[in-house]
Amino acid sequence: MRPQGPIATSRGGSAAKPSRVQLRRVTMDPSANICANFDAVGQAFITHYYQVFDNDRSQLGSLYKDEVSMLNFEHNPGRPGQFKGTAQILEKLQNLPFQKVQHQVVTIDCQPTPGGGVLVVVCGNLLVDEEQIPQKFSQVFQLLPSGTGSFYIFNDVFRLNVG
Amino acid sequence: MRPQGPIATSRGGSAAKPSRVQLRRVTMDPSANICANFDAVGQAFITHYYQVFDNDRSQLGSLYKDEVSMLNFEHNPGRPGQFKGTAQILEKLQNLPFQKVQHQVVTIDCQPTPGGGVLVVVCGNLLVDEEQIPQKFSQVFQLLPSGTGSFYIFNDVFRLNVG
Repeated sequence: MRPQGPIATSRGGSAAKPSRVQLRRVTMDPSANICANFDAVGQAFITHYYQVFDNDRSQLGSLYKDEVSMLNFEHNPGRPGQFKGTAQILEKLQNLPFQKVQHQVVTIDCQPTPGGGVLVVVCGNLLVDEEQIPQKFSQVFQLLPSGTGSFYIFNDVFRLNVG
Repeated sequence: MRPQGPIATSRGGSAAKPSRVQLRRVTMDPSANICANFDAVGQAFITHYYQVFDNDRSQLGSLYKDEVSMLNFEHNPGRPGQFKGTAQILEKLQNLPFQKVQHQVVTIDCQPTPGGGVLVVVCGNLLVDEEQIPQKFSQVFQLLPSGTGSFYIFNDVFRLNVG
């Protein structure tokens, strides 16, 4: 795909001898590498993620990436909830104070992101243990290609919408 | 910053004569270009965005990028709400069926994204016209550096959390 936009615009004769900096800027063009099937990727990921989460969330580790993935879980300045890397994220998820959990997905939005990634935004209802009244939640993922044909979670933000 | 993670790992002697493909893969390392002040960028952006939106949303165009930015606005398969490029996005926002609007931000989550970008996730309350009862909303932005020291909106997803 041809680079587009201002970051690929060369001025005067500078294109004759591209520097390393210019190569890097061209490859950072956000439109240069778009995941064509972003919607299918996002939908399939969400189905899989919540199936694993609701059945045995100790198995979610393979969807994150060591030392790279980030999770904000009900983060607040007064009560920090920021986690980095698979180990920290998995520890947080495994220690959530419920046994049974069910994510009911209401809406999924998918958009492509630079570098062949996919932004996935979920709104839904959460039922934990014996609660009958669901809590609304929003969760946002950015998936990045792993280089082996699959995707991993780079960004993860979870929020309960409780006023 | 040193490239990290599997995509920067060379095997055997392949590093001696890097191909164009390898150069591209190295520059796509998601940890190679992280916005250090992602939280300040995200917080300042949200303050600015909703100030402009609530005062005169016809002025939001400069925050998007022609032909590049994406907006999902209450998108559903049966009633599509996907817009691409500044003109389409601005037309949608200007034609929303209310005169007065107030976004009350409750939570903001910010995370860095590859390429020096920032993911911003907002949950809040929306008051339109003479309504007294706010509607909950979630909005997600990915901001990318414009190359001139500022940021533009690459991804934008808006949802009302109305069950």
